[in-house]
Amino acid sequence: GAPGAPGFGGIPGQQQDPLFGYFTAVAGQDGQISAEELQACLTQANFAGGYKPFNLETCRLMINMLDRDMSCTMGFNEFKELWGVLNGWKQHFMSIDRDQSGTVDPNEMRQAVTSMGYNLSPQAMNCIVKRYSTQGKITFDDYVACCVKLRTLTDIFRRRDQAQQGVATFPYDEFIQCTMST
Amino acid sequence: GAPGAPGFGGIPGQQQDPLFGYFTAVAGQDGQISAEELQACLTQANFAGGYKPFNLETCRLMINMLDRDMSCTMGFNEFKELWGVLNGWKQHFMSIDRDQSGTVDPNEMRQAVTSMGYNLSPQAMNCIVKRYSTQGKITFDDYVACCVKLRTLTDIFRRRDQAQQGVATFPYDEFIQCTMST
Repeated sequence: GAPGAPGFGGIPGQQQDPLFGYFTAVAGQDGQISAEELQACLTQANFAGGYKPFNLETCRLMINMLDRDMSCTMGFNEFKELWGVLNGWKQHFMSIDRDQSGTVDPNEMRQAVTSMGYNLSPQAMNCIVKRYSTQGKITFDDYVACCVKLRTLTDIFRRRDQAQQGVATFPYDEFIQCTMST
Repeated sequence: GAPGAPGFGGIPGQQQDPLFGYFTAVAGQDGQISAEELQACLTQANFAGGYKPFNLETCRLMINMLDRDMSCTMGFNEFKELWGVLNGWKQHFMSIDRDQSGTVDPNEMRQAVTSMGYNLSPQAMNCIVKRYSTQGKITFDDYVACCVKLRTLTDIFRRRDQAQQGVATFPYDEFIQCTMST
């Protein structure tokens, strides 16, 4: 760019994105976000509500979901993608949580999962809702964990169901590999 | 029992077990242990080391593993079984953690998983170790989460691999049901 133009002194091409400064502050010297750094960042942005720490386990799942290079950390493009997805989920969650309590009830959770396009039996749905409820309520943190896991597992299933028959076959080792990392 | 015999005033048959008093103290009025109660109990017993809170997520997984009646809570028999399994894992973990640091390294973790009888490829093993490491170390908490999950998923797989060919087939709904609850 021309000297004196806006952004002089910055890194060309990256500076336009307001998220980039935030990313570098969180990522620190290595330029990659670990699960612990993501937790600190989401806690600070008050994603969990009430300034509670965002669950580390959920952070690992999110990094895993987008971790194409298997580094267990997250670069800027992955962070940007996650930020978009997470804001979508936050808006969806807030629209369900009508009384702004910071939690949703099992029925609202079932509706949310259905409206995301997942076609599940009542048993599977009950199993999911039970798994992510605490004292009959689902927090945003657990809602995100549920969304991440459902999306990741559905992707895994689809890759194994190439004939699109709704049935997938796994050798033991691959079953463990897929399911232990989610 | 005869009046005046040892245990007078207690509930016959349950009193001999020293764990029962502990169970009732933890379970409270409903006589069932929830994930939150289990967390409080394992934190108090210092299972995580350094009196850090034991991970709630791991507590849910443990209740799930033994939850045959799908109540999401734990009765005395299930608690007793868990207590035995957990102490076995704790001893195993302490025997690996030779410097008593409270964490084990990836190589030690691989050896531990192998010595439990799991036959996994190097890729599956790496995937597991990465998933449960924090800054290159595995805490007892994460070690337990890993053991619980590996055991539960292997049981699920075996039930679907009745011909014992090392291959299992899942319809989508059942795949989601099995994997979302672990």
